[in-house]
Amino acid sequence: MAAPDRGFPETEFATRTARAQALMAQTGLAGLLLMTEAEVRYFSGFHTLFWQSPTRPWFLFVPADGKPIAIIPEIGAELMRATWIEDIRTWSAPAPKDDGISLLSDLLLPLASGGETIGVLKGHETALRMPLGDYERLMQGLSGLQVADATALIRSLRMVKSEAEIEKLAHICSIGSRSFARVPDFAHEGQPLEDLFRAFRREALAQGADDVPYLVGGADQGGYHDVISPPSRRPLARGDILMLDTGANWDGYFCDFDRNFAIGAADSASRRAYDVLWRATEAGIAAARPGTTCRQLFQAMQSVIAELDDQGGDVGRLGHGLGMQLTEWPSHAAFDDTEIVENMVLTLEPSLSYGDGRIMVHEENIVVRRTGAQLLSARAAPDLPII
Amino acid sequence: MAAPDRGFPETEFATRTARAQALMAQTGLAGLLLMTEAEVRYFSGFHTLFWQSPTRPWFLFVPADGKPIAIIPEIGAELMRATWIEDIRTWSAPAPKDDGISLLSDLLLPLASGGETIGVLKGHETALRMPLGDYERLMQGLSGLQVADATALIRSLRMVKSEAEIEKLAHICSIGSRSFARVPDFAHEGQPLEDLFRAFRREALAQGADDVPYLVGGADQGGYHDVISPPSRRPLARGDILMLDTGANWDGYFCDFDRNFAIGAADSASRRAYDVLWRATEAGIAAARPGTTCRQLFQAMQSVIAELDDQGGDVGRLGHGLGMQLTEWPSHAAFDDTEIVENMVLTLEPSLSYGDGRIMVHEENIVVRRTGAQLLSARAAPDLPII
Repeated sequence: MAAPDRGFPETEFATRTARAQALMAQTGLAGLLLMTEAEVRYFSGFHTLFWQSPTRPWFLFVPADGKPIAIIPEIGAELMRATWIEDIRTWSAPAPKDDGISLLSDLLLPLASGGETIGVLKGHETALRMPLGDYERLMQGLSGLQVADATALIRSLRMVKSEAEIEKLAHICSIGSRSFARVPDFAHEGQPLEDLFRAFRREALAQGADDVPYLVGGADQGGYHDVISPPSRRPLARGDILMLDTGANWDGYFCDFDRNFAIGAADSASRRAYDVLWRATEAGIAAARPGTTCRQLFQAMQSVIAELDDQGGDVGRLGHGLGMQLTEWPSHAAFDDTEIVENMVLTLEPSLSYGDGRIMVHEENIVVRRTGAQLLSARAAPDLPII
Repeated sequence: MAAPDRGFPETEFATRTARAQALMAQTGLAGLLLMTEAEVRYFSGFHTLFWQSPTRPWFLFVPADGKPIAIIPEIGAELMRATWIEDIRTWSAPAPKDDGISLLSDLLLPLASGGETIGVLKGHETALRMPLGDYERLMQGLSGLQVADATALIRSLRMVKSEAEIEKLAHICSIGSRSFARVPDFAHEGQPLEDLFRAFRREALAQGADDVPYLVGGADQGGYHDVISPPSRRPLARGDILMLDTGANWDGYFCDFDRNFAIGAADSASRRAYDVLWRATEAGIAAARPGTTCRQLFQAMQSVIAELDDQGGDVGRLGHGLGMQLTEWPSHAAFDDTEIVENMVLTLEPSLSYGDGRIMVHEENIVVRRTGAQLLSARAAPDLPII
């Protein structure tokens, strides 16, 4: 299968920026000060793994009109010049005494003098990716500047994907599906779980993933107990229930789904749990239409899960948004009344507890179209597969 | 080569905690509130890739005496119970209205009433990994509580590695060295750079890496121009200078070094640049002894680089600490007067600009012993290798 083009045409970034600026005008924001990888990339196209180094902060300022302004370490200037951004202000970082703070002050002082309000991400699922001390010092020097939480604004934009984004997401989901389909070929009794993890990563790369940054799972007799562990050296044994959950990516977009397998033979409790989760997912697929709320989607899945477990496990939600990050807004949970709209890309992730502290998870990735959910992952088998 | 044991004995965490508490006593801190992956893992052993999901905050509180206290989402309870931590307080996350904040308040209110001071990471190379709005609300509810920057304290502990940490770092550096040694076997003219990146990742996994989360590089005629880019589809061509820089990891510890290759033939300017950087690294290896400062180490390398480039490139420093993160304190830079001590693990990373905007980087990983630097990476060839 041919891969889509890498990157985006400039119109993608221009559209995103114009939409943000329209919302900023409605809410009276004179600018957005962004510093997290996904947000900087969303508005600029600046794409690098260098964010894994915590040393240097990176900033993008979206003004009320015009292109965003980059305030970044000099080491990123060449890459930023390859994007649509024109105003690129750099400093030689790291510089602990002034890591971009003077440059930010110069930019923001006129807004502070005018008593303007800027937006910063302060809400759910966000973090401050700069030293807190630097942030406090910056703001102390900008008296008059008002800071509002821009989480709702950014969330409303990023939750709905463009066709170009959906194409990338479909591509990586297809790579993930092909990789899971090969698991029975390379997983076997006696194989230490850490070796299976390596084999899965190698397979996903061979299938065309750029990387497999997220891979967790578990295996244990009659069911696993934990869904976020790194792999152990314990060898797979007959009677194990094995789960692999992967976030592979391509061109900066993630798939995020899991698959369950029984090794040699499946116990009846695990087969029952699998069946309940498979049907809960079906209920989720049927419910995931424009106009449904995330709470309703949660309830549609939870009503099936309740056949076996009325707690819905301890994972806190039954799926979430998917895109440039492994997990994004919204949450399929009782607390989230977000209305589902066309072109949201979502995970459906029902889970349950059963037996003596065992847990099972099941997950698919979908894009919501006008007429309903369209699967991006190849639907899991209706019965627990046996290797 | 046999891999070391995974994880650490409990004494490792007890020692780290006791050292932190001794420093806290000296500086009058009643506790440390930590929330970043490396710090939570450093004091607890809690190790999961789940941190890649930005949705949930995680907290670890190191009190003035006794074991640390975990305040974490319920989804992590099972894994945290497998560590030495006993006091584990959980909530069903995500919960946007109260993501751990009540639990933190309950813990910190007695300290606030007593006008005590706690430490939070606010300094260089740190971030606030919780919503800024939640942090502000938490602190507003804790009037009387003083917050000090604990960066210097944490930095002084994490910069110096234990023998068990050094063993893990030596293991992953050895895996990285064997992977680079195989590059001439799978890199070839006509190969798109993104395919080479995939082949390198697969090789490093085959050599025993858990993952290769960081892989950047470049290739261009007579030299590359950028050292933080993701791979392009441009095929390798005769006359290219190719650089691959990897952060592979094993059991949560990183290697971080790069290698340069010429495709088919090497131009004389690139050979000269390589020779200068190789000798700058030799100067760094000779200088990296207990008692030297990072500034002196920087100058030792810079004095050789100056033969060709008196700016030292735009990368801001010539190496850094290495451990649980791809880049850690200290920085080999003119601003950093940290004294090098025994059992620091460091990168030596001289770089220079040459020709028309070309850049070259060169990197080794070392552990500083009483008698001087010991290489963890297999030393690069003294002449630019030709594939």
